[in-house]
Amino acid sequence: MKKIRIGILGYGNMGKGVELGITQNKDMELVGVFTRRNPEAIKLLTKEAKAYQIAEAKNMTDIIDVMILCGGSKSDIPVQGPEFAALFNTVDAFDTHAKIPEYYDTINQVALKSKKTCVISTGWDPGLFSINRLYGEAILPEGKNYTFWGKGVSQGHSDAIRRVEGVLDAKQYTIPKEEALRRVRNGDMPELTTRQRHLRECYVVAEERADLSRIENDIKTMPDYFSDYDTVVHFISKEELDREHNRISHGGIVFQGGRTGLNNENTHIIEYSLRLDSNPDFTANVLLAYARAAYRLNKEGSYGAKTVFDIAPAYLSMKSNEELRRTLL
Amino acid sequence: MKKIRIGILGYGNMGKGVELGITQNKDMELVGVFTRRNPEAIKLLTKEAKAYQIAEAKNMTDIIDVMILCGGSKSDIPVQGPEFAALFNTVDAFDTHAKIPEYYDTINQVALKSKKTCVISTGWDPGLFSINRLYGEAILPEGKNYTFWGKGVSQGHSDAIRRVEGVLDAKQYTIPKEEALRRVRNGDMPELTTRQRHLRECYVVAEERADLSRIENDIKTMPDYFSDYDTVVHFISKEELDREHNRISHGGIVFQGGRTGLNNENTHIIEYSLRLDSNPDFTANVLLAYARAAYRLNKEGSYGAKTVFDIAPAYLSMKSNEELRRTLL
Repeated sequence: MKKIRIGILGYGNMGKGVELGITQNKDMELVGVFTRRNPEAIKLLTKEAKAYQIAEAKNMTDIIDVMILCGGSKSDIPVQGPEFAALFNTVDAFDTHAKIPEYYDTINQVALKSKKTCVISTGWDPGLFSINRLYGEAILPEGKNYTFWGKGVSQGHSDAIRRVEGVLDAKQYTIPKEEALRRVRNGDMPELTTRQRHLRECYVVAEERADLSRIENDIKTMPDYFSDYDTVVHFISKEELDREHNRISHGGIVFQGGRTGLNNENTHIIEYSLRLDSNPDFTANVLLAYARAAYRLNKEGSYGAKTVFDIAPAYLSMKSNEELRRTLL
Repeated sequence: MKKIRIGILGYGNMGKGVELGITQNKDMELVGVFTRRNPEAIKLLTKEAKAYQIAEAKNMTDIIDVMILCGGSKSDIPVQGPEFAALFNTVDAFDTHAKIPEYYDTINQVALKSKKTCVISTGWDPGLFSINRLYGEAILPEGKNYTFWGKGVSQGHSDAIRRVEGVLDAKQYTIPKEEALRRVRNGDMPELTTRQRHLRECYVVAEERADLSRIENDIKTMPDYFSDYDTVVHFISKEELDREHNRISHGGIVFQGGRTGLNNENTHIIEYSLRLDSNPDFTANVLLAYARAAYRLNKEGSYGAKTVFDIAPAYLSMKSNEELRRTLL
């Protein structure tokens, strides 16, 4: 069997997760990792693959079937997405929700022209959570959808705390509120405010002699990030932060509650939850399943940008359609 | 907007659930219910629709876009499926897992010839649970899949008890074992025997003066149905059975546990659970979402048999692809 030849663009946590994930997928092989850093300095786990400078990618279009874009959504993907869609089938985890429609249009235009298939904004949210929001809403149209994140570290909120004067380092956990979960699970279909949904717990390393109560106040009143939430601030040492808060676990839950019956007497609850020891590893594995889909869709002549909504589940599986019907249906 | 015109074949619990479900889907309307019974004796909730004898359906192919087959999997669907695939786009909930591959082939042949689109074996299992088994396995290939059913009534097991000598009536609940759920949630990825997965709890109405301990023994030792399980038998009165065990609630959980990392040090748990007050209502709503998909796929010229694996999520939603990207991704 001819394997699907994968390229990795960016060798951070997620790029490394993709490299490991490829070893779990017997129909895939890693060709190369493309990096801004000095490729000589990068030691891959995969003996058969090599690290290259990004500029070399354009000479390897005939030996890479799908390029996985592992850069950040803020500055990397918006530039690399269109560039690479002109050359390769791609998969990315672009997660700036507000900018997805515009990004889709850009990638779609480029990929239709280059006759490539580019899966955008996959992973778990956007990605698997999005799929569950869609299925939930389609099946229980008289209902309500809830997305909870955590417990897990929010990079954006941790960064925001680090910008507060007197803060040396910080980690911020997003935590679903138990009372909210209980009410949703109970079928109450409550209206929940931002404050009722999530708690924000902050572990902060402050400069020596910093005014801790001023820092705490600056955090708790920060608009957009914290002012709409119940926020708990703990001051700890750098050692404790590095020792106890270095994990990259995450997770969350998507609920759809809905009612049916002549008098809406029947309540139904769909609950989809993820508990992930490693956010980047899991996201990497989702991207690989969609790389398989991108490869197959491209072979079928289905070009352009695709989201998880546009891709039938069967495209993600190593199994044939016949085997899927026999073993998983 | 032109609505999707729905026909219902069979007016039992699920057929009635489909009728109610149509009122939740603003892009659908009910044209008619087709029945073996005397149509005059059937009173529909939908004023605009009428009940017809099944034989009349063939004259209504130009005013029905999708026919929903609501009969039983044992004797109705195997006959009606191919008959109606020759005339209509169809959706069914054929759930005899072992016979699905053969049924698929039959329907596919008929529907390719008639240029119809026929979604088979949808609902929640097969259906939503199947999709989650597929996504789980594709994303965490080094892992294990678990399906738990219940707490809910198993019709097949209740029927089996009713065939025991001296039994007047019975209801059997399938119940996931707490210890099994705990271990799976904990990421242990255990090997579980049939006995370790589910408990079978039976509520039995016996004939007066029947030998209760013989009945209990006959149930507990019944091959295929009970002998591989821990089974609890309660003898109750007919009144109590009718009063306390008349619910059609059901549910279940699909888990995928998997590991990633250089030394498999990271554990990930995907948990998809359903808690349904009314199994037929919920199943009906799933069928309606796939009726929308069948209608659209047919318009696109995608003919033949389809399963939930073959249908991209977007086809199920009332929203446009652009709106989906903007609101749910």
